[in-house]
Order: sequence, then structure tokens, then C-alpha cells
Amino acid sequence: MATNARGLQAVRAPELCELGAVDAACGIRDGLFSSEQLVQSCLDQIKAVDDKIQAWAFLDPEHALKQAREADAHRREGKALGSLHGVPVGIKDIIDTDDMPTEDGTVLHAGRAPVANATVVSRLREAGAVIMGKTVTTELATYAPGKTRNPRHPEHTPGGSSSGSAAAVAAGMVPLAVGTQTNGSVIRPAAYCGVYGYKPTFGLISRHGVLTQSPPLDQVGVMARCVEDLALIAEALIGYDENDTATRPVPRPRLLEIALQEPPLRPWLAFVKTPMWEQAEAQTQEAFAELAEAIGGQVEEFTLPVHFKDAWEWHRAIMEADLARNFDQEYDKGRDKLSASLRGQIERGCKVSAVEYNRALGKIPALNRALDELFDNRYDAILTPATTGVAPRGLDSTGSPVFCTFWTLCGMPAVTLPLMQGGNGLPLGVQLVGRRGDDARLLRTARWLVGHVQQVLAETAGQ
Amino acid sequence: MATNARGLQAVRAPELCELGAVDAACGIRDGLFSSEQLVQSCLDQIKAVDDKIQAWAFLDPEHALKQAREADAHRREGKALGSLHGVPVGIKDIIDTDDMPTEDGTVLHAGRAPVANATVVSRLREAGAVIMGKTVTTELATYAPGKTRNPRHPEHTPGGSSSGSAAAVAAGMVPLAVGTQTNGSVIRPAAYCGVYGYKPTFGLISRHGVLTQSPPLDQVGVMARCVEDLALIAEALIGYDENDTATRPVPRPRLLEIALQEPPLRPWLAFVKTPMWEQAEAQTQEAFAELAEAIGGQVEEFTLPVHFKDAWEWHRAIMEADLARNFDQEYDKGRDKLSASLRGQIERGCKVSAVEYNRALGKIPALNRALDELFDNRYDAILTPATTGVAPRGLDSTGSPVFCTFWTLCGMPAVTLPLMQGGNGLPLGVQLVGRRGDDARLLRTARWLVGHVQQVLAETAGQ
Repeated sequence: MATNARGLQAVRAPELCELGAVDAACGIRDGLFSSEQLVQSCLDQIKAVDDKIQAWAFLDPEHALKQAREADAHRREGKALGSLHGVPVGIKDIIDTDDMPTEDGTVLHAGRAPVANATVVSRLREAGAVIMGKTVTTELATYAPGKTRNPRHPEHTPGGSSSGSAAAVAAGMVPLAVGTQTNGSVIRPAAYCGVYGYKPTFGLISRHGVLTQSPPLDQVGVMARCVEDLALIAEALIGYDENDTATRPVPRPRLLEIALQEPPLRPWLAFVKTPMWEQAEAQTQEAFAELAEAIGGQVEEFTLPVHFKDAWEWHRAIMEADLARNFDQEYDKGRDKLSASLRGQIERGCKVSAVEYNRALGKIPALNRALDELFDNRYDAILTPATTGVAPRGLDSTGSPVFCTFWTLCGMPAVTLPLMQGGNGLPLGVQLVGRRGDDARLLRTARWLVGHVQQVLAETAGQ
Repeated sequence: MATNARGLQAVRAPELCELGAVDAACGIRDGLFSSEQLVQSCLDQIKAVDDKIQAWAFLDPEHALKQAREADAHRREGKALGSLHGVPVGIKDIIDTDDMPTEDGTVLHAGRAPVANATVVSRLREAGAVIMGKTVTTELATYAPGKTRNPRHPEHTPGGSSSGSAAAVAAGMVPLAVGTQTNGSVIRPAAYCGVYGYKPTFGLISRHGVLTQSPPLDQVGVMARCVEDLALIAEALIGYDENDTATRPVPRPRLLEIALQEPPLRPWLAFVKTPMWEQAEAQTQEAFAELAEAIGGQVEEFTLPVHFKDAWEWHRAIMEADLARNFDQEYDKGRDKLSASLRGQIERGCKVSAVEYNRALGKIPALNRALDELFDNRYDAILTPATTGVAPRGLDSTGSPVFCTFWTLCGMPAVTLPLMQGGNGLPLGVQLVGRRGDDARLLRTARWLVGHVQQVLAETAGQ
């Protein structure tokens, strides 16, 4: 069997869909397999399992294979290859694609066919990725669930709003997917489905061509099956875009290179329970106590200032006021086709005053300054639950985002790592949150933590 | 007498204060006179006339002379000189300076002593300018007048809110001044006082360190006694600032070089009466009819779409909601020391909903796109009144900003040119408005118009 630089052996086609993105890109580059073989393997997996999971809002196997064949032809011609050359990616169905519908999880947008790609889709294409299809979102990326089920247990929610993206990655249908988070919509479904999720610092990835829910809160994120894959795709997506005024002309972080490094010093983690701790299930509280113990001397509990608890209300005011403004057409023309929960949010949002809204926005820089101290003084990252517990049973809700709200408001980078599980075997996500703008360090710390926990578990098992 | 490259002769000190900024900078650079002589001349003029005009909120003659002497020493040492080396500039008293108080035109901020310079002040210092002192503003840069009188007639308002900046330039106290405009606060006082005023495209000049009234509307502008001086100082102020997210990393326009060029084709002007035309005084309407005739075939009337009239209400909603948010401390703790007009604005602002506010903000890009057509099709600039008429008699109001509101909301660059006068001999400003981002062309067109009108007047006089 052929072996490439990463020590990968040519694998049989049916197993390709299990590969991570870094390995897949490497295998294609080195000629161990073709993009077409990889995409076919993913399509086979979709065919085998998606009837039960329902991760896709739009999927045209022929169109995906056509892109894969073009990627293969490109390579055969000896042209330069992008970092994601030939690797399939699932795209949340609120992100515009010029060759597939984008229906935003609502019948009100059925048949919507954008004429242009979102900036993130253009960037993926520039990196050589195959746009596999559109993954299921909740209604307008808010709370009312789509059709997707949790691959770990079909009677449980996959979480939302990036439900299909998380489920598709978890079920081996694609190695990578793109989602968005305005409250907890990347971290929560990734945690519930047992995959790795990453929401970069606010403003690193352009939202141009993505459904607008709340401009100060909307953030693009990614899902994968390991930390280095998160770094690989995020690095392709990050960049200044004159069409999104939240993006800034700053140097693009070398996420993958840094994520792969060993930390120069053993990282210190601040275990932050947040004012929402009481909402965490008993098994979550216990699991985090055990995790902190397993990590050992590298973690210390850190209590946020008491007044930070108001931040959840500031987030609500901003988000609901923005839902009311951005979904006014949907409400005016089709409110009977909106969920009761979204109607309620919109109606509350109409009552938020401009003063309240702008005052809430004005808190964000102050919160970040206060948190800077935490990072300055000692800690590499904040350790905190990703969710209140494992994916709740039932498909009529997508679970609670309260353990994501604060970090989303602050625009801080966050990852969830599927390092633990609940009593019923469902995954329980470990969230690490970094300093705003310090994404590479966060990913390096995350990769260290994964290795450290695995080592501790191995030692425990060996005793 | 010594003569330099611009043909300037060494002039007697008492006349130096009459020089424009380009000539002044040139004379200092070429050694025809010193910065100290220039600043002393300006101080003499201030001493002679400011008792009647009251343009200054803070002025320390010794501190100004000290800066001038430092500038002269710098030149004698053969060091590189900035574009404004040794030239005195007046700074509106809502713009922070680390060596002078900044009291914002309200007793509530009496004695306020900022520890850092606003970005514009730092930029002026980098360009070698002498910060002459702080010019009078209205109350918190809103409508309630300060102590300044119109140099053209002391019983008339100088306009606001950059009252002192306009009056100081008009009365020969400084060749340049900096102001700000959230509605009409640069263009209106410049027009009333008979000087040249320029408010660049939104986002070109940083507002960091400037009193925040309304972030989507606040814009820094400049005043001078000719178009090339506007270009000179604006070029020094423009630039990306990471502390003001409205600034963008775009190439800095070469304003002075382009303003000095002849237009490649004879400019076309769109005469726009705006939906506020009925508020223009009869003499203003007549004067503009005559001006259009004098300009000849180069001007055509252009009518804005009817629905544009709502823009004045959008501007009001944004500005008042922002006044309520940004002056909440002043209102809560000292409302009895606020003017009734500002209290009224704040109280109305509290009632603006976030949806209304954000919807109004959302109109700005659409308005600019609609106006792009006008510029694409034919016109170099929009010709429109700067004010409803000449400076009103009385010092209890600063006049109406309605002929500035729309362009300020759109963030378009605007200049006022003192080309006309009313029946009572008071100046009447001619406003030219350019395409957003096309500031250099606007200044070139403005300089052309000044020359063209002067030529027509000379021909008329010669007949």
C-alpha cells in the first residue's frame, strides 16, 4: 500500500468518510485517493444513515461528484491546490450558495435561490473545497427545530440552530461543516452530537451572504472531528471582507500551525461556572468536578463578577430587538407560518428601546476589558460547560444555550470538545473560551487538553 | 523682499493672520516668516476682535507661542517638516486635548481635563500644527448656543454647533479650525460666518476622543478660507484608526493635489432643491436661481425621489435615540442644567424603539445606492443651499440644519462655499455634495466652481 508523508496508508474507499479533513486533504494532495472517491464515500455514508438522521436540507449527489471530479482534474493538471482541495464541506442552510437553494429553515423562504455565494462559500471554493450540500437549520436559525435527529440517539435533539451541520459531521457524512452562532448555535449542537465545534472571535469571519439575525451577535463557526480540522477550515474562512464592516484588517492567524504546537508552558485553565451554574444538570456539575480533578493542578475555579449576570439580559435585548427588525417582513406577511416561540421573541423585541439596545451593546467592550485581566494574570483559557447537560430527549426543542450566551455576546473565541459523556452514554461537551483575538492560542490549548485528558484516561484505565 | 516658490513675499507681521494655511505653511517652510510670528499675529488679531466675537472656550497665548517656538526650533534644526508645520489650528471644545480642558459647552463638564488627545489632535501634532486653543461649541454640540457671535454682524448667530471654529476662521484669528457635524454643525456655521467648510465622507476621519453624540452620524469636519486649505488640513486628518470602527483601511485620498487640478471635463452639477425647499427663504431661492443661471449650461435641476423626504425623520430617530443614550448621565444627574431643547430631544429619544432605530440605519446604504446613479449618469456634484438663508438675527438659536440633514445621514462629503450674500450683506453659503468616498473630486469641483463664479462676476462687472 502507498504511504504518504503523514504516514497515511491508502485506505479502502468505504472508510474514507471516516477521515479527518487534514488527513483527507493530505491524502488527495499526495494521490492516495481522489476527491471523487472521498465524496463518493461520504455520499455512501449519507445514503446509509441519513434516512434516520435527516441532516440535509439540500443534497444533489451528482453536483457534489461533479465538483470532486473538477478538483481531481485540477490536480492532475498540476495546478496549485488549496488547503481544502477536494474535501467536502456541509453548509448551513442560511448561508447563500449560487448553485443550491438556501431556504433558511422556514416555509416562508421555500425555493429561495440566491444569485451569489456568501463570502465564506467563496472562500471555501478558493481553498478547493467541495460544497457537499446544505445542512438543516432551525427556523430562521432561531429555536424551532428542523427535521434533524441526533446521530448518537435518534430520540434526542441534535441541538440547534446548526443542527444538520453537527449531525452530518458526527455521522461521518462530511469531515467538516459550517454553522453560525448568535447565542449557542455552533457550540450547543456540536456538544450534543459529540463533535468538535469552534466559534472564532467576532469579526474574524465575514457574515456577508449569511442570513442576518443580529449583526452585533451573528458569528460564523465550524465543526469537525478534531481540533486540527477546526483550525484548517477556520483558517480558510477568516479574512477581511469589505462587505462585512465587523471584519477588521488584521493579520490572519496561523491557526493550524499554532494549534499543532505544544504549548511553551503547561496551560492554566480558569474553571468558570458562570451565573447559570444552577441550570447545569447534576451530572454536568459532577462531570466537571471530576474533569477539573483529572486535569489536576492546572485548573482553578474563577468566579465572574456578580454584575456579569446581567449580560444574559443584555444579550436578550439585543437579539430580540434585532429579530424584530430583521424578520419584520416574515412577521408582517406570514406570522401564521412562524413558530410561537419566534413570534414571541419578535413581539418582545418590538418593545426594546433604542437606548436599551445601544446601552447593552455598549457593555461588550467593558466586559472584554474585565476579562482581559483574567487572561493577563494567569490563564490560557476558560473551562466551562458547553451545555446544561447532554442532548435532551425529544425533538420539540433544541436545548438551552445559556452556557454559550455570555461568550457569544462578548465575541470571544470558543471551542467545544467531546471529552465526556453523560450517564446514558450521550456526549457532554467541554467548552474552552479564549481571549478575544487570541484564537490560535485557544486552539493550541484545546489540543493540549484533548491530549492531556486522553493520557489521564489511559493511565486510569491502566491502573 | 524675499520671495518664495509660491511668489509670496515676506509680509509684515500684522498681516500674517490673513494668510491661508497653504501659504502660511509654505512661508514658514521657506523661512519667509516664523511660526512664532504667525501665531503672534493671530493672537494680536484675537486680542483685537475677540472681545466682540467670543470664539474661544480656552486660549492660553503663552502655550500657543511655546508650540510655535518649538516648531521654529524644529525647522532650524533641519528636521523634516509636516504639512501644517507651525500653522495654528482652532479645535472645537468637544475634541479632547491632553494639555487643555475640554468642556463640551456645558457647565456639567466644567473643568474636564482629558488625559489623552483625540486622534485628530494627534494627527495635527504629527503634521506640525500649533493647537491654538479650544473653540466654543453649543451645549454638548446640540442646539443651545454658546457665547459666540457672528463676526459678520454681532447681533446674528454664528450658527452651531461648531460656532467658535467658524467665527475664529472668519475673523482671521486662525487660518484653520476643526469642527464636527451630526446634523449641520460644520456646514451651517461656516456658511453663516462666510468661510469655507468641509465635512468629509463618513468614516474618513476618526472620532476617537471626540464627544460621542450619535456614532452613526457624528463626523469631523474642517473650516478654512479657501478650498485648498480645506484639502490641506483634511488630508492631515484622514486615516484609518483602530479606535474608531467607522474608519476603514482605504487608501488616503490625495486631496490637495487633486483639488488643485483643473477638472478634465467641465463639471456638471445637479441642482437639488431637496424636500426642504419650502423652508428656504425667498432670497435664498432667488439667489440659487441666479447662481444656476450664472453657472450656465453646466447645471440641471434634479429632483430626489419623493420617498426621500422620510430621511429627515430617520435622522431624527437615530440622533435623538443616541442623544438619550449618550447623555443619560447628564440627564440623570443634572437635567436642570441642560437646555429645554436638549431635554426635549433626550425625552423623545427615549421613546424610539430599537427596531425603528435600526430600520432607519438600514436606509443609509439604500439611499447611497440610489444617489450613486445620479453620479454615475452625469453629475460631478450636487448643488444645493447650505442653509435656509443668511445667519438669523438673534443669539438664542443657531439656525436650521435642514439643508445638511440628508447629506449627513448619508455620510456624503459636503462643502460650503461663501459665494453669495443676502440682501443685508450677510454671507449665503453654496453647498456642493459629492459621492460617498469621492472627496477629492468634490474639492476639485468646488475649486472649479469658485473660479467659475468669480470669472462670471468679473465679466458681469466689466460689462
